[in-house]
Amino acid sequence: MKPVDILIRNGSVLTMGPRDTLIKKGAVAVAGDRIVEVGTEDALAASYQAARTIEARGGIIMPGLVNTHTHAAMTCFRGLADDLPLMTWLHDYIFPAEAKLTFDNVYQGTLLACSEMILSGTTTFCDMYLFEEAAAQAVREAGMRAVVGEVIYDFPSPNYGPVEEGLKYTEALIKKWRDDPLITIAVEPHSTFVCSPELLQKARAIADRNGVLMVIHLSETEQEVAQIREEYGRTPVAHLADIGFLSPNLIADHCVVLTAEDMVLLKDFDVKIAHNPESNMKLASGVAPIPELLKHGITVGIGTDGCASNNNLDMFQEMDTAAKLHKVHTLDPTVMDARTVVRMATIDGARVLGMDAITGSLEAGKKADIIVIDIRRPHLIPLYNIYSHLVYAVTGSDVVTAIVNGRVLMEERVLATIDVDEVMAAVNRIAEGIVVKTSD
Amino acid sequence: MKPVDILIRNGSVLTMGPRDTLIKKGAVAVAGDRIVEVGTEDALAASYQAARTIEARGGIIMPGLVNTHTHAAMTCFRGLADDLPLMTWLHDYIFPAEAKLTFDNVYQGTLLACSEMILSGTTTFCDMYLFEEAAAQAVREAGMRAVVGEVIYDFPSPNYGPVEEGLKYTEALIKKWRDDPLITIAVEPHSTFVCSPELLQKARAIADRNGVLMVIHLSETEQEVAQIREEYGRTPVAHLADIGFLSPNLIADHCVVLTAEDMVLLKDFDVKIAHNPESNMKLASGVAPIPELLKHGITVGIGTDGCASNNNLDMFQEMDTAAKLHKVHTLDPTVMDARTVVRMATIDGARVLGMDAITGSLEAGKKADIIVIDIRRPHLIPLYNIYSHLVYAVTGSDVVTAIVNGRVLMEERVLATIDVDEVMAAVNRIAEGIVVKTSD
Repeated sequence: MKPVDILIRNGSVLTMGPRDTLIKKGAVAVAGDRIVEVGTEDALAASYQAARTIEARGGIIMPGLVNTHTHAAMTCFRGLADDLPLMTWLHDYIFPAEAKLTFDNVYQGTLLACSEMILSGTTTFCDMYLFEEAAAQAVREAGMRAVVGEVIYDFPSPNYGPVEEGLKYTEALIKKWRDDPLITIAVEPHSTFVCSPELLQKARAIADRNGVLMVIHLSETEQEVAQIREEYGRTPVAHLADIGFLSPNLIADHCVVLTAEDMVLLKDFDVKIAHNPESNMKLASGVAPIPELLKHGITVGIGTDGCASNNNLDMFQEMDTAAKLHKVHTLDPTVMDARTVVRMATIDGARVLGMDAITGSLEAGKKADIIVIDIRRPHLIPLYNIYSHLVYAVTGSDVVTAIVNGRVLMEERVLATIDVDEVMAAVNRIAEGIVVKTSD
Repeated sequence: MKPVDILIRNGSVLTMGPRDTLIKKGAVAVAGDRIVEVGTEDALAASYQAARTIEARGGIIMPGLVNTHTHAAMTCFRGLADDLPLMTWLHDYIFPAEAKLTFDNVYQGTLLACSEMILSGTTTFCDMYLFEEAAAQAVREAGMRAVVGEVIYDFPSPNYGPVEEGLKYTEALIKKWRDDPLITIAVEPHSTFVCSPELLQKARAIADRNGVLMVIHLSETEQEVAQIREEYGRTPVAHLADIGFLSPNLIADHCVVLTAEDMVLLKDFDVKIAHNPESNMKLASGVAPIPELLKHGITVGIGTDGCASNNNLDMFQEMDTAAKLHKVHTLDPTVMDARTVVRMATIDGARVLGMDAITGSLEAGKKADIIVIDIRRPHLIPLYNIYSHLVYAVTGSDVVTAIVNGRVLMEERVLATIDVDEVMAAVNRIAEGIVVKTSD
């Protein structure tokens, strides 16, 4: 009997490994920050002596979800302004609210986002926002895994001031967090329409020099594409190719409006894509051609985007929407089948973040990023197909246990690392300061 | 101090009454099956002595949701077959499974559906299925309010046999349940494509004779419209107008594929419509022109459809999808604003079911159909706008209390009328008998 720290038992283990193995009466053994073995409960019970046993009660044991695009601290603006034209929303509500942001706002807002994400089964996410040192500290405290990056654009930022300082701020973040086991820093210019080619090239140079990822909003709306076409004579994707910005280390968020040539470029440069169906729907941006991108063999993950355009961070609801939206958009019920969508929210999401060697599936040697779903609930009875259940029936509130890097962040829906009452009170206080419209 | 049975206090009361009144520190007093008064907490606390006080802890007190279209007992088939072409789904999975249905299957499946609906804030629903005497009994036991009707079509039914027996069965249901305070029977021919004009006319005669509603699936797919055009030379809506079937007492489910003339007919006959966005998406049927129907002044409610095509009965998720789907489909973020969508899921839903005089809003004299939502949860912090919260952030699991007809069906998420473990076990046993594919 080998000693391990945690044995999760009595569940169906959905590995999302190379063969999509599903172990009916399965178990997962964890030692330190890693998965030691995934197998049948009988085999693991006979091999390991566990310091702590987690009982899945016949539920689903699976990799924690990967949210490939969000602005975590925008929890502070959840429902501040909805059902508005994009430019009214942005200029009359979001920008004025963001102009007043502080380090502490972002810290508390990110902690609230982490609470919500852990409670709904997300263990890894990719963040883009302001005051990202605060975000990194919040994520570290929460114990989640994240790619974190300061948003950079040509105009001054409420955090760092002029753009040159933004690049320095990013490099300082990279240095500070380089050896962190959970936080990875990325270089994150906002988009082609608020970042000059020079800025984008400098951003790429920093990313290359430090061997880190880049994140950008790309081809989110028709308006953006029209503006870039007018300014540079090409689509945003072609423009980025032209200035040498496309790369396998680039995560492109949204990609709603793409030409056939754009898709070939994205494939040729092995750009990774974060698909945000609910945000694209709510802001009326359009429907990203995800089934086509998948046919091209492009790696696509799923993201919730920020809470001002969704308005929650529940990846299970996002999976449901992703599956259904493309069926009705293509009028083909067979596209975006449940297994494909679960893959996008787990192992493919990890691939988008360059983390598929360490997370996104349950395999011996990988980091222990694991969630447990309770299926003894009326809306999850009966169970014919686990993938269908995860996409079409489960919601975030069905997740009972979450483990990141071998550490239990939630058990029986109680958060272990965050004082959730304190964080909710803090964000409520922040909201009182930024109310610009009332409820009725 | 007047005595009342229940006082719900310490919440924001969203009345959904004629003026959409929102009472910030509000309360609702209930005596017997009715709402006695809706007002500020201070005023009601000074006026009433309550046998039972329900504490909303700063949450939202609102009318229970109205699910205008479902097939409750299809919970038995939740996730049985997904991501398939419509005809494969129907002929290879659903029809064979339904052919084996029994009275007890429908009873248990409906009880499971009621459990799920109560737990997610639905208090009233409209059902169409087989063995509806079993459904009515289950609903009665659960304590919910429902319109219930046996599905009728030209071919023999596993329940009643030949079609003439279906009409008799329906009339027997009407007689048996006529004085029930919660169950209303409707006449429910399946659709124009499996019901002859003669059958539809007989159905209407029964409805007229008994003063009850009719329910039909209408213009759900392009295929259906093409078939009816070929057979009768007109659209399904025009066909129904032609044979004298359209009426203010008709609930038309889906209405995805409509011409401009169809919409005028629906308006002229004051037909009520049940919109099922998630089912229409998942089955790739198309997007119903709801914003246009609303512009015509047609009454539209929201429905989940059955669990084989959704796969849950959560009306909060359905509201979220309804709001977002039409924004992206019309590329206009201002359509289907949150307030409109909440209205569709409450008072307008009640209007669809001919019940707006008794449910769908919190007003003195109406039946006490009330839910309470707990907002002290990370994904519901902060709160700027209650309508936005309900549509874009709340899910069914945030509902903590549900009252129907003055009776508490759930408190603190514990069901009062249903032994949920027993029902889940029963439906799991049913599922074992109808498995036609395995999970992996």
